This record gives sequence, C-alpha cells and structure tokens, in this order.
Amino acid sequence: MLPGQKAGFELDRKLEADSEQVMWLGLCELRIMNDKRWPWLLLVPQRPGVEEIHDLTPLDQAMLTFETNMVAQGLKKMTGCTKINSAALGNIVRQLHVHVIARSEGDAGWPGPVWGYGMREPYRREDLHRLAQQVRAAL
Amino acid sequence: MLPGQKAGFELDRKLEADSEQVMWLGLCELRIMNDKRWPWLLLVPQRPGVEEIHDLTPLDQAMLTFETNMVAQGLKKMTGCTKINSAALGNIVRQLHVHVIARSEGDAGWPGPVWGYGMREPYRREDLHRLAQQVRAAL
Repeated sequence: MLPGQKAGFELDRKLEADSEQVMWLGLCELRIMNDKRWPWLLLVPQRPGVEEIHDLTPLDQAMLTFETNMVAQGLKKMTGCTKINSAALGNIVRQLHVHVIARSEGDAGWPGPVWGYGMREPYRREDLHRLAQQVRAAL
Repeated sequence: MLPGQKAGFELDRKLEADSEQVMWLGLCELRIMNDKRWPWLLLVPQRPGVEEIHDLTPLDQAMLTFETNMVAQGLKKMTGCTKINSAALGNIVRQLHVHVIARSEGDAGWPGPVWGYGMREPYRREDLHRLAQQVRAAL
C-alpha cells in the first residue's frame, strides 16, 4: 500500500492507466491526466464503493468541495487559463472522481467539453513529471 | 424583481432563454433546462459577477455544495437514472451555473457528455411545467 492510501480502497484500473499520481490530499488522491491537450487534474476520494457525490457523508462532501476548489484555484493561477471546467460524470468509470480542467480559448475542442473529444495524447515522461511538480508547488 | 431574487443579480440571457425557473433555494435559483432529451437542472448562485466556484466565499461554496447535492439526490430518486452528471463549465456562458443531469444507459449521446451534443429539443409547455412540479415535490 502506498503512503497516504486508505485501507480497502483500490483505484479503478482505467483511471490508473490514464493518469499519474500527483499527491495525497486529506480525502482525495490528486492525479494528473496523461493528456497533453489540456492541463487536467483528477480528485479521487478514497472511499470504496462510492459513485455519487451525494452518497459521501456530509463531512466528506465538505472536504471534497474544499479540496476541489483549492485545486481549481491553484490550477487557474498556475496556467492563467480562461476557465476552469469541473465535473463529476462517471458514465464510463463509476468510481467517484472529479475532473478539474484548465480551459483556454482556442484549445482543443474549445468551447466544447473535453470528454469524448478525439484521442488522448500522452506527455513525454519528463514533461508529465515536471507538470506534476508544478502542480505540487502551486498548491 | 421576483420574490426570492437577490438585488443586483441579473440572470444571463442565454440561461434565461434555454431554461425555466423551478424554485429558489437559499443561495441558488434552481432552473430546468428546456431540453426533453435529458432531465437537466441548473443551479445559478445569486452572486453578481462570479464565474468560478472558487471565487465564491467559503460559506457560499458550502451552500452551493449542499444545494447541488440535495438537488442531485432528489433528481436521482425521482428519475431512477443510472448516473448523475454534475458540472460547472462556463466556456460559453460565463455566469456561474452548475449543471445537474440525470443520465441513463442508452439516452441521447450516452455515455458521452450532453454539452454540444446535437440540438436542444424543447418540451411541450405542459410537460415542462409538470416536470418542474415533480422536481419541487422531490426536493
């Protein structure tokens, strides 16, 4: 088990394959999507079996709000993006996860949503690690 | 000024044209998107000039979480949907608004997102009003 990981929680395999760990927050694991088209973070609450935000306890809901908004603010400051897009969808991966994406005018698919748009474009390893380091520094 | 409306707040014209009022919550106006392809609600915090959730005060952030999750839970119970999709995007309409959508396997565009998918399909007036009444009863 990794440091910070909660007992009984197992990350969904697709989330694990498509993204890379950034850091542990109080409730969530913060990950970065390995897609260089947009700066795209994921918060994964460490609660086994939960699919909907409203199924978290009230305290966890408040924690998730706090962590999501902290991450959103840091990502906006770091990137200077036009707009943060935040969402919990889960139509494909049911394990609860919250997207926080930095969108800028003229980026891929703008002003449409990122989900389902074209194909994921992985970073070079060193670029992904550098970006993860920048995110840690921004929070 | 309508009862419940906050002084100094004016609803974005596109939101007003595309959706219909359901009720006033503590912070938000709750509206229903006039698109019969999906049961789709909008929460619009009555705070002039705010575009990002993280720019709300901490108290307003907590209120928005509470109201969003209450609406999500009610909509899921009412519709029996597969998954709630909730999101704050704002790439087109900048006035802060939160989408809460009931998604079900096999619905229009499933499992992709609803935004940018095809053309809006308005309800018949009486169907829209009946649905708004069901939402009020479910909350």
